[in-house]
Amino acid sequence: MMDSWVNSTDETARSATEPNVAGESGSGADLHLELDGTGSRRDQLMRALRESIRSGRLTQGTRLPPYRSLATDLGIARNTVADAYAELVEEGWLTSKQGSGTRVAPRAVPLESERSRLSARRSPRRPTHDLQPSSPDAAAFPRSDWMRSARRAMTNASNEAFGVGDPRGRVELRDSLVDYLARARGVRTKPERIVICAGFAHGLRLLSTILDGAVAVESYGLAFHREIVSETGSPTVPLTIDEHGARVDEIPDSGSGTALLTPAHQYPTGGPLHPERRSAVIDWARSTGGLIIEDDYDGEFRYDREPVGALQGLDPERVVYMGSVSKSISPALRIGWMVLPERLVDDVLDVKGPRELSTGVTGQLTLADFVSFGAYERHLRRMRRVYRRRRDLLTGMIAERAPHIRVSGIAAGLHAVLELPPDTERMSVTAARRQSLELDGLNAYRHPDSTMPSREGLVVGYGTPPEHAFSGALEALCLALPEAPDGAD
Amino acid sequence: MMDSWVNSTDETARSATEPNVAGESGSGADLHLELDGTGSRRDQLMRALRESIRSGRLTQGTRLPPYRSLATDLGIARNTVADAYAELVEEGWLTSKQGSGTRVAPRAVPLESERSRLSARRSPRRPTHDLQPSSPDAAAFPRSDWMRSARRAMTNASNEAFGVGDPRGRVELRDSLVDYLARARGVRTKPERIVICAGFAHGLRLLSTILDGAVAVESYGLAFHREIVSETGSPTVPLTIDEHGARVDEIPDSGSGTALLTPAHQYPTGGPLHPERRSAVIDWARSTGGLIIEDDYDGEFRYDREPVGALQGLDPERVVYMGSVSKSISPALRIGWMVLPERLVDDVLDVKGPRELSTGVTGQLTLADFVSFGAYERHLRRMRRVYRRRRDLLTGMIAERAPHIRVSGIAAGLHAVLELPPDTERMSVTAARRQSLELDGLNAYRHPDSTMPSREGLVVGYGTPPEHAFSGALEALCLALPEAPDGAD
Repeated sequence: MMDSWVNSTDETARSATEPNVAGESGSGADLHLELDGTGSRRDQLMRALRESIRSGRLTQGTRLPPYRSLATDLGIARNTVADAYAELVEEGWLTSKQGSGTRVAPRAVPLESERSRLSARRSPRRPTHDLQPSSPDAAAFPRSDWMRSARRAMTNASNEAFGVGDPRGRVELRDSLVDYLARARGVRTKPERIVICAGFAHGLRLLSTILDGAVAVESYGLAFHREIVSETGSPTVPLTIDEHGARVDEIPDSGSGTALLTPAHQYPTGGPLHPERRSAVIDWARSTGGLIIEDDYDGEFRYDREPVGALQGLDPERVVYMGSVSKSISPALRIGWMVLPERLVDDVLDVKGPRELSTGVTGQLTLADFVSFGAYERHLRRMRRVYRRRRDLLTGMIAERAPHIRVSGIAAGLHAVLELPPDTERMSVTAARRQSLELDGLNAYRHPDSTMPSREGLVVGYGTPPEHAFSGALEALCLALPEAPDGAD
Repeated sequence: MMDSWVNSTDETARSATEPNVAGESGSGADLHLELDGTGSRRDQLMRALRESIRSGRLTQGTRLPPYRSLATDLGIARNTVADAYAELVEEGWLTSKQGSGTRVAPRAVPLESERSRLSARRSPRRPTHDLQPSSPDAAAFPRSDWMRSARRAMTNASNEAFGVGDPRGRVELRDSLVDYLARARGVRTKPERIVICAGFAHGLRLLSTILDGAVAVESYGLAFHREIVSETGSPTVPLTIDEHGARVDEIPDSGSGTALLTPAHQYPTGGPLHPERRSAVIDWARSTGGLIIEDDYDGEFRYDREPVGALQGLDPERVVYMGSVSKSISPALRIGWMVLPERLVDDVLDVKGPRELSTGVTGQLTLADFVSFGAYERHLRRMRRVYRRRRDLLTGMIAERAPHIRVSGIAAGLHAVLELPPDTERMSVTAARRQSLELDGLNAYRHPDSTMPSREGLVVGYGTPPEHAFSGALEALCLALPEAPDGAD
């Protein structure tokens, strides 16, 4: 059963397509409410609803979702939602009528004093729809499993865990990662070769500090990562990407160079590095004394067959393997790991310093337990199902509504690339923003010095929205896509 | 009642002074066991005991502490200790006799295979006695209160908390800090002026990046902090310290300079900045457009009267107030805060980046709850009692055993300075190391360009050892002190 309340950003368009977009998501609700975390849940919800009405995102007469579905979406008690609705009816923001549900009242007027208090506190504005490929679904954070691990970790921790920390990170976590990474990703290492960091960026910064010479990077990748490398004095050199992944034969042959790669699933264009290229880049590293940095940013999310094993397994002395929980659990945890060749361990620790100054120990111990007791793999299996379904909704919708657009990079990960006709990317990104849909154009990822032919496309992070907001985000996306060129279907 | 088992590092000396040093600590036990966190607590304890016997720290015939006191010290169940002892008796490492307790067996011999497994895993070796002023007592971590807050925080968190984070840090934490810091330290601010960081060093690094020109620092201070400042391109200029604290009149008068100070309790020499100097440095900042960085590293630990309020309260637009939980709860949490003048907030956020890449959200939310519900202040009150007692044991012991040595900087904080006669500091540090007692000489803190007369002394961090190891550490300290000069006492 579906509730018929409307998308507040584009009422007309939404109504026209409603039956299609909601898909399996249940309620079809795509009201994006952001609780600010201050005070009781009821107060937070009331503030968020008032703010949505005041800002015009919820317009007069709009029907609110039933208690049950909003409570589920926000992860709060049903009574809390009922209380908040009742209170807002009292205050005159909402009306409630038997049979027609709860709706936004006509002429709901904010108190001036309240408006100023709210605006002073508000976090940076978030878009209504977020398809940036930045984050997994925050609403899917495995709270109860995480708390179970936290409790167990806290009980089992030895006292010294709460003193000054080993800069390599907690041994419990390094132990559990050795086993997990071997099993799931084919990584071969020992706990002494692992250094825990606060995520990929932190690890890359530590590593870049000890690198000499240029770093070969893929022509499309995160500008932010290239900046980290350049800030430490190493220029980046772009490699062409073709249908077999990065052209590793373009890596400069100078001694002790470095290549930063995303072999499991090129970021963001998609697709694994071809097996011949995998061998070739290992050969390059062996023959020149070079180093490969393997960014295994979503090696865990492969949908249609077993994931490609880590490149690191081919030569642990030539590859730094890097991973984190930012995509697999949450970027809010700030935990990542570097699996290092033996010769680099001391250098990295020299940069990191004699003490752990970055990553909190409670998170590390909790993650160690979470991994050891299988909760991590359970969570990954569950999220793979969720994301695969979303991917299928995305590809299904594009096939139906915009069949002239090809969707690529969908075998793995939390995002896909919609390949666009020439000269339409910028227009599409702008059209998306106009609907408060945030996503990235492919050109935002392009290395400024790349000589490969430019591609146009949209990078669609389908992991990011909470479940209840996904269909609305897809709908907004479809409206932002360019029309089929004349003559095409 | 006291147990008569012995200090394993120096049996004779310990016996000679036993009645004095154990003081109020209850068991008088000073066996330092370090559990490695792998496997069950029973296995960890067994490994640690085997390792202590094997390394010679526990010698033949040494009596082990009773179950009860070791269990309390390590924070594990009494039965676990009993099991471990029984098992080691079985294995032949220990002997147990009615009336004489459990003792190290004669000729306890390790298995070769076990030795190699152990050495491969061992963390960097820690000293037997640790009086470095680096850390509060790790064994006093408030586990159950922290877990209570963690559970509540996890239940109350909104879903967006687990997405990409605001680089200012969680608003819940900034809210709770505004109230706490106002109440406890006289800091005047708003949540929007606070930026959460991974501890003092991280905050100082962010801040240093946006500073222009030289930074005036105290002639004695952490070399590590000076390095952070210099690495970002700002030279440091030392200020003389006299009986009124740092000579703020020596701060260069050039425009937009910066002074990094520890006004509540000069680190490490002790003593607050004199009220006239507090006014003078604020005047300096106002008249030159300068900035003061206030390192309030142990503003919470003042023993004999109310703590001096934060300098920041005098002029929130001229002072960056920085604090962390590293001394007040644990350095393993990696959470600190910067309270910024309004004009610096955006600059600091520009350096920190558009997303939270440092501090995990679960720790932040837990700390927010911990502070809001009063658990933080309760913990501080408890620790103040513990540390004051330790300070009194230290001063009492020095007065009795080494009356020629003056103890200074004891009104606050987690460390004291033992002022030494000329040319005895290096010798004393070496003598301490010989007994596996780690502490710092005052000269390790001295700015290399300082022109003030050199002081000799030992910086004694009495917060660091766990309760059961404190008396042993004090004993080792007394043995490392220089004799009274001829003619004195």
